[in-house]
Amino acid sequence: MATLLHIDSSVLPGDASSSRSIAGVFREAWEEQHPQGTVIHRDLATDPVPHITAAAWSAGNTAPSEHTPEQTAAFAARVRLIEELEQADAVLIGAPMHNFSIPSTLKAWLDSVILFGRTAGESPSAQGTPVIVVASRGGSYAPGTPREGFEFVQNYLEAVLRDTLGLDLDFIVPELTMATGNPAMSELIPLYEASRERAFEEATAKAKGLAERLAA
Amino acid sequence: MATLLHIDSSVLPGDASSSRSIAGVFREAWEEQHPQGTVIHRDLATDPVPHITAAAWSAGNTAPSEHTPEQTAAFAARVRLIEELEQADAVLIGAPMHNFSIPSTLKAWLDSVILFGRTAGESPSAQGTPVIVVASRGGSYAPGTPREGFEFVQNYLEAVLRDTLGLDLDFIVPELTMATGNPAMSELIPLYEASRERAFEEATAKAKGLAERLAA
Repeated sequence: MATLLHIDSSVLPGDASSSRSIAGVFREAWEEQHPQGTVIHRDLATDPVPHITAAAWSAGNTAPSEHTPEQTAAFAARVRLIEELEQADAVLIGAPMHNFSIPSTLKAWLDSVILFGRTAGESPSAQGTPVIVVASRGGSYAPGTPREGFEFVQNYLEAVLRDTLGLDLDFIVPELTMATGNPAMSELIPLYEASRERAFEEATAKAKGLAERLAA
Repeated sequence: MATLLHIDSSVLPGDASSSRSIAGVFREAWEEQHPQGTVIHRDLATDPVPHITAAAWSAGNTAPSEHTPEQTAAFAARVRLIEELEQADAVLIGAPMHNFSIPSTLKAWLDSVILFGRTAGESPSAQGTPVIVVASRGGSYAPGTPREGFEFVQNYLEAVLRDTLGLDLDFIVPELTMATGNPAMSELIPLYEASRERAFEEATAKAKGLAERLAA
């Protein structure tokens, strides 16, 4: 029985969000492959997790038997998120670019789930779990573009999802999503449409490929 | 009458936080130089600003006369933060590294204050304002160290504070702050202590230098 942890973080609802739309296509294809499977959906925009606090942080470095009541509560909230990650056979994350980086809500989730000695460190508890990130962005930050040096989504998620949590990381990168809303970008609309089309195709193909891999 | 905008984001209170301690020394030296000045203090750990929402974001791209009541309220909250930045003659930010990047609370503040057509774009409204960032970190991510590629605080803040908001950016970088709490880092304690000492000296010197520059 396969479990998918599906995390959205776009502030835009439904089809207004590229990352939600494309993650939605991945999820549908996943559900087709896993009709008996479970999807855990976390919408960080409508239901954000708390910012890390002193109690939540220090609880991670203190034996549970020595926790204060505040640490116990804060740590339990972290463990709930960590268990969702550990239970998952695959993870799907919508990570739109906000000011060149990830949404603050997604950073708060990461700060909760990254726990040395459990999800991070010598043998990370979710090591090897496949994660697909839909890293949508308003412009293009691809290698060779003028904005290449302003890319702090993929670069950063490689450092935390891949190199810290040990997840098996793959990206879908819909670019130029602001082209239709910004007159200065109107010439880029065909490139945006091609990028979007490719992202939808990749979402379906990656969901199927993952199902085959998990079944093998 | 000089105004300092002082932002803290460490989850640790008081002297337990390197960034708070060192920012505090900068602030004291600043206050000595500006006995009649104003300090606006924002503690993002104890009093976080909201994550950006669809209403807060879209309000920035919509004429105020067309705002919904929800957009009006969300935009007013952004404008309060923006005005604090615009009023400031200098900005002081405590930006401890959390999981290789800035705290989620500081990202939420940035997402509120970065507004194209006002604080960002052709002529950013706070352009040229000096900003000192106390970028404390548990290890070392300096050029040439093994963790150099995991540095997403200074690199990122250059992209947003310097290249987007147009601020005149300067860093104080206390390193290895976890050395005293982590037995595996005990050999690094002398390096930590030297880094801390240097950071305190820089905080005082930079506050004085800034006062001279603003007075000139």
